[in-house]
Amino acid sequence: MKQPPLIIDCHGHFTTAPKALENWRNQQIASIKDPSQTPKVADLKISDDELREAIETNQLKLMKERGSDLTIFSPRASFMAHHIGDFQVSSTWAAICNELVYRVTQLFPQHFIGAAMLPQSPGVDPKTCIPELEKCVKQYGQVGINLNPDPSGGHWNSPPLTDRHWYPIYEKMVEYDIPAMIHVSTSCNACFHTTGAHYINADTTAIMQLIQGDLFKDFPTLRFVIPHGGGAAPYHWGRYRGLAQEMKKPLLSEHLLKNIFFDTCVYHQPGIDLLTKVIPVDNILFASEMIGAVRGIDPESGHYYDDTKRYVQATPNLNEEQRFKVYEGNARRVFPRLDAALKQQGR
Amino acid sequence: MKQPPLIIDCHGHFTTAPKALENWRNQQIASIKDPSQTPKVADLKISDDELREAIETNQLKLMKERGSDLTIFSPRASFMAHHIGDFQVSSTWAAICNELVYRVTQLFPQHFIGAAMLPQSPGVDPKTCIPELEKCVKQYGQVGINLNPDPSGGHWNSPPLTDRHWYPIYEKMVEYDIPAMIHVSTSCNACFHTTGAHYINADTTAIMQLIQGDLFKDFPTLRFVIPHGGGAAPYHWGRYRGLAQEMKKPLLSEHLLKNIFFDTCVYHQPGIDLLTKVIPVDNILFASEMIGAVRGIDPESGHYYDDTKRYVQATPNLNEEQRFKVYEGNARRVFPRLDAALKQQGR
Repeated sequence: MKQPPLIIDCHGHFTTAPKALENWRNQQIASIKDPSQTPKVADLKISDDELREAIETNQLKLMKERGSDLTIFSPRASFMAHHIGDFQVSSTWAAICNELVYRVTQLFPQHFIGAAMLPQSPGVDPKTCIPELEKCVKQYGQVGINLNPDPSGGHWNSPPLTDRHWYPIYEKMVEYDIPAMIHVSTSCNACFHTTGAHYINADTTAIMQLIQGDLFKDFPTLRFVIPHGGGAAPYHWGRYRGLAQEMKKPLLSEHLLKNIFFDTCVYHQPGIDLLTKVIPVDNILFASEMIGAVRGIDPESGHYYDDTKRYVQATPNLNEEQRFKVYEGNARRVFPRLDAALKQQGR
Repeated sequence: MKQPPLIIDCHGHFTTAPKALENWRNQQIASIKDPSQTPKVADLKISDDELREAIETNQLKLMKERGSDLTIFSPRASFMAHHIGDFQVSSTWAAICNELVYRVTQLFPQHFIGAAMLPQSPGVDPKTCIPELEKCVKQYGQVGINLNPDPSGGHWNSPPLTDRHWYPIYEKMVEYDIPAMIHVSTSCNACFHTTGAHYINADTTAIMQLIQGDLFKDFPTLRFVIPHGGGAAPYHWGRYRGLAQEMKKPLLSEHLLKNIFFDTCVYHQPGIDLLTKVIPVDNILFASEMIGAVRGIDPESGHYYDDTKRYVQATPNLNEEQRFKVYEGNARRVFPRLDAALKQQGR
């Protein structure tokens, strides 16, 4: 009998960390104006039992209910807030958040594997992020990173992702053979709602930047996961194919699809149907971003909006072999360190 | 026998104006640094014959080939460039562009009816746009406006569309019973490609702003057309329904869909199929934005990407009665001054 696929959710954040984490962060933020308030890292005390409870009553509970096996888990995206303070503030904060995720992965090695946030800071050279990245990969065994294309939080004053500005990160990603999820954080621009506009716009923006540039000529093995189903791009795939054509770029299958991948964080059946119709199956990775932006139950279906496995199961566009790729095969290929870790576990 | 529908394209810009227009604009831009260069409005000379040729060999030719009857025509969106210069610069430029569109509508009254650009300028009170708006409606017979939610061109430093900042425009729209298409212009932010990122992001952003606010409580009859198929919103409609639900807003059918409408500028069949599946047919208006951002021929279909009528014809989600709404009925309802003008023509 054929083995059922391992259901790997490539996009989960630690959105349910104990309140002590937020309190510590608030004190850190207060200390930007009043350095005498600066909290020590050691002031933050979260026990293993508290971590266990935060996970067991939330993500793990829903994973079991929905039948997903393993989540690639990273610090809460909206809390990265790289726009707050300077590099030192981001650096301390990233270290704390990454360590907390590491502890979760140690407590639940069958169910969570880590991905790192970076200590980005607006206007600061991204190469300053390398030591944290190295620690997360080498010491914590994390298998990917989240890269924020707009550390300003909605002012978009960093160069496009195709700029050499970002190359130090890409060089390290290639060296370690890890992908980046391109994921912004909280918007501090009143025009952009964080999860309703800024997140989705960033996905669309990233894809268009990659169409305009030729980044993957310089880094043929670099891999990006574009979350939230690729923002607007699959819905407007004809527009993007046409724009690439006018720019005399190769077909998107050549120009982008060897290097970029889309998650399935699209919270209704017609969206998943479009994604799986338009984007080749080898470029789609299962994800739900649970517990995240949309936590309610859809009155139209009677199920959680973010229970994306239901949509992947129900879509007529995938057969069992293709579903295996979406659930497991593609994630193992895009995250080779995940594959290696699973093999070590005999999975 | 039942009359075939009038095919009304609600989204066309004068992208093919004679070169003299661009030359004049370039001189105006040069004069911002050197006022001695300031061109006179009278310096711009474009004859009726030149206008006729610009239209007959471009938009009108394609309209006839594709079988569309009438275009709601406005100045070139990417040339509005409200971020350039001050209010005086925008004011002179808007007047020129709107008059040129007016002349086209006088030359081809069966095929073009006007919509106005506004002389917006970053940081300037939108009420300064009222005189130009009034002239376009009263003297030029224009039936709608294009409202730029980001006159900065990609820096997004105006308040959200739900802010009282914009109310003077809305009051005038209600008084005249005209809708606005929410349409940004050229991006001067290197992160945002104009037609591939900024346009689509603006559509998504506008919809999320309208979800967050309660604008239509203050203006129950205000109507917005969200171009480019609503940006990312229909693809992520579950996300938007879920976010509205968490914000304790009414269902989107109540909260948005009495007041916002989506055009069909989505350049492939799966996109139009999704749009017509997810968004109620009463909220969809036919449009192509021809000749616009994507001018090539899709190698997958052998037809122009922006020949959106083919997708509307081919989608299994619409019957003939529903297609009539998309092509004609909804446009007459959303643009009552268009309906009145057509009736005057006996159409």
